Amino acid sequence: MTFLRDLLGIPGASSDPAALAAAARDRSGADPDGLPLAVVRAEDIDGVRETLRLAHAHHVPVVPRGAGTGLAGGALAGTGAVVLDVSAMDRIVEIDPVDELAVVEPGVLTATLDAAAAEHGLRYAPDPASAAISTIGGNIATNAGGMRCVKYGVTREAVLGLDVVLADGTLVSTGRRTVKGVSGLDLTALFVGSEGTLGVIVGASLRLRALPERTLTAAAGYDDVASAARACGDLARARRDPAMLELLDGLTLDVIDRAQGTDHGRRSRALVIAQADGPAADAEIAAIAEVLGKEASWVEQGVDAASSDALLAARRLALPSIERFGKALIEDICVPRSRLADAFAAVEEIAAEHRVAIYSFAHAGDGNLHPIIGYSGEARPAGVQRAADAIFRLALDLGGTVTGEHGVGLLKRDWLAREVGPDVLGLHASVKAALDPRGILNPGKAL
Amino acid sequence: MTFLRDLLGIPGASSDPAALAAAARDRSGADPDGLPLAVVRAEDIDGVRETLRLAHAHHVPVVPRGAGTGLAGGALAGTGAVVLDVSAMDRIVEIDPVDELAVVEPGVLTATLDAAAAEHGLRYAPDPASAAISTIGGNIATNAGGMRCVKYGVTREAVLGLDVVLADGTLVSTGRRTVKGVSGLDLTALFVGSEGTLGVIVGASLRLRALPERTLTAAAGYDDVASAARACGDLARARRDPAMLELLDGLTLDVIDRAQGTDHGRRSRALVIAQADGPAADAEIAAIAEVLGKEASWVEQGVDAASSDALLAARRLALPSIERFGKALIEDICVPRSRLADAFAAVEEIAAEHRVAIYSFAHAGDGNLHPIIGYSGEARPAGVQRAADAIFRLALDLGGTVTGEHGVGLLKRDWLAREVGPDVLGLHASVKAALDPRGILNPGKAL
Repeated sequence: MTFLRDLLGIPGASSDPAALAAAARDRSGADPDGLPLAVVRAEDIDGVRETLRLAHAHHVPVVPRGAGTGLAGGALAGTGAVVLDVSAMDRIVEIDPVDELAVVEPGVLTATLDAAAAEHGLRYAPDPASAAISTIGGNIATNAGGMRCVKYGVTREAVLGLDVVLADGTLVSTGRRTVKGVSGLDLTALFVGSEGTLGVIVGASLRLRALPERTLTAAAGYDDVASAARACGDLARARRDPAMLELLDGLTLDVIDRAQGTDHGRRSRALVIAQADGPAADAEIAAIAEVLGKEASWVEQGVDAASSDALLAARRLALPSIERFGKALIEDICVPRSRLADAFAAVEEIAAEHRVAIYSFAHAGDGNLHPIIGYSGEARPAGVQRAADAIFRLALDLGGTVTGEHGVGLLKRDWLAREVGPDVLGLHASVKAALDPRGILNPGKAL
Repeated sequence: MTFLRDLLGIPGASSDPAALAAAARDRSGADPDGLPLAVVRAEDIDGVRETLRLAHAHHVPVVPRGAGTGLAGGALAGTGAVVLDVSAMDRIVEIDPVDELAVVEPGVLTATLDAAAAEHGLRYAPDPASAAISTIGGNIATNAGGMRCVKYGVTREAVLGLDVVLADGTLVSTGRRTVKGVSGLDLTALFVGSEGTLGVIVGASLRLRALPERTLTAAAGYDDVASAARACGDLARARRDPAMLELLDGLTLDVIDRAQGTDHGRRSRALVIAQADGPAADAEIAAIAEVLGKEASWVEQGVDAASSDALLAARRLALPSIERFGKALIEDICVPRSRLADAFAAVEEIAAEHRVAIYSFAHAGDGNLHPIIGYSGEARPAGVQRAADAIFRLALDLGGTVTGEHGVGLLKRDWLAREVGPDVLGLHASVKAALDPRGILNPGKAL
């Protein structure tokens, strides 16, 4: 097979079964339909271009891959596919402290970039929970969110320009190094969140932001999640602008306690953690605590750095705590924030109806709710998927979306169709056909 | 001609020569190649759909139009075109104070929406200089900028979802009412800034933001524009985050004085106006004034409301003042902000070389420079266009773009090609062909 022989001549290419197995899965927990044909761990843009030129010529499907931390199956690679792994292209090419931008290769870990920016008093604002293990390229491909997004926007707002290798191996540069610019279509935004279906990101110019001098935290405990969700709505009504606003339900607090030996669940049945940053952080956190305190059973205003870190650690440990005791299907709906209380209540009903445990926490300021459906054993019980489907239906019924920040991948394709309808699906297909006429880029995913 | 007869049956359609003449031009100062065939002042979405269905069936070009305030010729309509004017669809459908969003028709004036939002303690953040006369639909079609964008982002960041009528009359809804969401391609961002070439915007869900309790202004005068531009760079280095940062050169101050009877030009040869807003406005404006003051001949920190309004009035009156004394070609380049001083200096050299008067002012925080080339008489002297071309070349040489916020329209098509290169132009053409295969939407513009 001349294709495979030529492909294996590219530096970093392999058809070693262990390498194939390692490159076939992501963190979605779903299984591909077999082993991919080969994996190319590209060393540079030329390797990416050559891989795509060959695959294009031979009509072979290509699955772009970063760190493989995706939760929606976007990087699953099955029989016959070539995995194009760009995680070895991991240089920070440039940080410009006056223009407040970074130029990076796609394999840079998000937390690594953020730390490098911090040396210049800057930061890379989007902070997915996976920041320490996920790559910038993967973040861009999925338009990743995070806890700071309520104030600083999602990945799209941080991407100024991209270098992208198209399906046929053509290298294009979109966007620019300036924060503004309207020359031509916004192809940069089109590639952001396209989940590897339109091109392979090989470079990015990213907007950095001033690292706040001060960040302060407040926390409030509630007797039930409905009161906590209402308090978050009250913050919006009071026109407060938190830099973070997280809400954890009682079941989540309990499992954190069980895993970490803490007592959050005994203290309250719902927890809100808010931050304020920047020069007005002191005044802001006081105002936020005042609003949060109205319905709370307790509130701590401007908690100190140590207790703030402990609270945030609890939030960050929510998912690992759940996974300590079994498997989990991690969901990710987003609803108008005025409907957040309704969403929490309905998810509880769904859990009861389908007899599954659902741990819910939310980026409450964005209305982005993560219901985590826990289960034990290797195989996923039927009730888990039924509960997930009920949660997706709920999201649409409340005027929201089936994915706030994780992407469609393989797992939510059917629900994407329900959310956007046939005409928008048709537009997706038209754009896809225009950019990847042979349909080799991540086929069967996202669109 | 059955097409025209059917078209004139649509409510709001006209072929009256006065109506045609009024609908043929925008504020670019350029002339169309003749009168359009008809204008449809659509009363509702059905009128838009019917117009496009007819035009699509008959392969007739359609020029979408809002208030006609564009500066790049995007709404120029020549011989044989149908103008599709949506300015009569001007209802604010909904303002949701908790979800902080507005649902509007495209003909709403930007300032009207902003005023309506203010009744809820909110605002529509993007503020093009044309806000009082331009429509939201036009703002979206050009991805309009403005003075607040340095802090709050451009129009794209304010658009959550769109209702768009495609070339064949199909109505689609993109995006959503939530601030986050990654289901499918970001078609919303693709339509934003597409200058009427991909579809006609008939509705929008827009993000509103909290109206700051306090907004404070500082101003500083400099002996030359280079010092003023350096001071703006120093602000970035000091990690200050102004809500507005404007820079006017000496020639601009002189013409404002001549028109308004003020004395800005006698006081200084370059003026920087900065604002800080929000709960830390007092501390922020003090910090900003301190940085701006280092190289300034004078600085006023936290100027009071009256003098602040006077300064901003000067800024807003810059263009009308220039136009009081003749005609003007309004340019709009954007450079990395670290190159702003270089850009001002080079524009002065271009003015001398081509013997034209160029008044320059900038959204300095974004590196977005407006060189205004003044001239007298009806016909534009050849030196004016040569100077403009030199300015575009300069923008690209400095790593910037030929348009920061006005768009490509008809006037900058050649320069777009130079900026993005043949491969990206090819991508534009592919996307255009996918969405508008008959090429009826605003042909010859933008792409």
